[in-house]
Amino acid sequence: MELLFLGTGAGVPSKERNVTAIALMLLQEANSIWLFDCGEATQHQILHTSIKPRKVNKIFITHLHGDHIFGLPGFLSSRSFQGGEDELTIYGPKGIEEYVRTSLELSGSHLTYPLSFVELREGKILEEEGFIVSCKKLDHGIPSYGFRIEEMNKPGELQVEKLKSAGINPGPVYSLIKENETTTLEDGRMIHRKDYIGPDKPGRHIVILGDTRSTELNQDFVQAADLLVHEATFDKESYELAHNYYHSTTAQAADLAKAGKVKKLVLTHVSSRYQKLDLDQLLDEARAIFPNTEIAHDFFKLSVPSH
Amino acid sequence: MELLFLGTGAGVPSKERNVTAIALMLLQEANSIWLFDCGEATQHQILHTSIKPRKVNKIFITHLHGDHIFGLPGFLSSRSFQGGEDELTIYGPKGIEEYVRTSLELSGSHLTYPLSFVELREGKILEEEGFIVSCKKLDHGIPSYGFRIEEMNKPGELQVEKLKSAGINPGPVYSLIKENETTTLEDGRMIHRKDYIGPDKPGRHIVILGDTRSTELNQDFVQAADLLVHEATFDKESYELAHNYYHSTTAQAADLAKAGKVKKLVLTHVSSRYQKLDLDQLLDEARAIFPNTEIAHDFFKLSVPSH
Ligand SMILES: [Zn+2]
Ligand SMILES: [Zn+2]
Repeated sequence: MELLFLGTGAGVPSKERNVTAIALMLLQEANSIWLFDCGEATQHQILHTSIKPRKVNKIFITHLHGDHIFGLPGFLSSRSFQGGEDELTIYGPKGIEEYVRTSLELSGSHLTYPLSFVELREGKILEEEGFIVSCKKLDHGIPSYGFRIEEMNKPGELQVEKLKSAGINPGPVYSLIKENETTTLEDGRMIHRKDYIGPDKPGRHIVILGDTRSTELNQDFVQAADLLVHEATFDKESYELAHNYYHSTTAQAADLAKAGKVKKLVLTHVSSRYQKLDLDQLLDEARAIFPNTEIAHDFFKLSVPSH
Repeated sequence: MELLFLGTGAGVPSKERNVTAIALMLLQEANSIWLFDCGEATQHQILHTSIKPRKVNKIFITHLHGDHIFGLPGFLSSRSFQGGEDELTIYGPKGIEEYVRTSLELSGSHLTYPLSFVELREGKILEEEGFIVSCKKLDHGIPSYGFRIEEMNKPGELQVEKLKSAGINPGPVYSLIKENETTTLEDGRMIHRKDYIGPDKPGRHIVILGDTRSTELNQDFVQAADLLVHEATFDKESYELAHNYYHSTTAQAADLAKAGKVKKLVLTHVSSRYQKLDLDQLLDEARAIFPNTEIAHDFFKLSVPSH
């Protein structure tokens, strides 16, 4: 489980930062890649990575602002051009289907794969491939959503020493014991898995929020996540600008990370008003409140370690 | 008058070539820039040039395939974000207005400048700023157009020696004679401009064709142009592929340049199947038929000299 930031700017592309897109790499976990937002030229960014468009089978759109969706028609067409055949599902706010279908139809683009849409609402929107995804409405003027991606817990480790003490020696029987609630041994004994297995290995939880004003209402939604990805369009002092434009500051993102007791915070969606030299200050502002913070840059890669 | 190729690839972007866009720089002639097609990430390409989006006041769309239009909504939004206020007109086939308006409306993009649309038809579509633009339908499966941009002729030079011989000495009266059909001198003589002016300076003519199969029907339209920009999606031997996909080969483009007696040919819209090493061969194929040929690359710049 890795996050690869494909675009980390706000509003318009700059030479340093493209508009928003984040790839959640689930190649080991689910042999697939999920994309969060798809700003213009996301497919161009992908050319500089190892991502194969046909591996992207879900795209989550936080909101319909152009810097988050204008790369969709091109990405979908190119995935087709490259011979992708696997179904792709787009999860997004009302309007995303009309936008995509109109663009594809008027441009005469005929996809080689089935494309389906799921309109976002609050609550659980997806449970499959060992993951649960739920949604929460944010505060951005137009409907904007956050996504909480929860990897399901996995069964713990077999307690080998305890099995041996009970006279059960390593062999194919161990798999049977691990995979079934009860297993009957050759000697007739019935073994209950729960007696020989450690505690569940908790899955990882990551939260990716779309553009949003700072609001305490997000606190429960991000609670205890291993990783929170939060916009930080503005610096700490520009909270009035942030409020007026329905965005957040570095400090507000850090406040939420702290209040929500998340493990790590990554800031993204950084306004092009900030130059490279300003980044240290932005980072300091956040770290003063929540030390385990990073600021993403284009092609920033982050793995989320297992527990 | 300069052409700046912003994207010279076909179908999908590659690391070497972006999808189609060509800027016709008319800064000296009309203080404006005209864009021909606007594939995805055209605004990103523009970041690496001196082009100011607010100077772009006309966009001509040859056809609605995605690799020619998916950069429009982003370009238009960013032009607005950067405070452009001057009207912008888009000339394109039926459907372009629906595509652009749907994209802008669903994404909540409110432009700071007036945007208008002109639906293409064959014949003259524009006469202003010292230019006439006319259109011709090509052969590309869906409606695809070529544009012939004709700079209007300019009055010739005053024949100074002849004026002096007639006893008319240099001074403000020379401007009067040049600007008016007849001028009455202080001594009462009436001067006819036509008697003292050289032949008209012919304007430059350039032709930019959208994607098209090779067809003799284009011959009149490109006739004697100073510059012809023609797609060359395929190499000479792949004429069957070219036919099936409604595209042209290098040799077909050169044939048209020759038959049309144009002065210079620039090939573009080169398939990503061709690598850097293949370009010499592609160029040789065309030059064998029409020697004054170039192959465009991204950021290739070409000035069209005055006559
Ligand atoms: Zn937004
Ligand atoms: Zn085409």
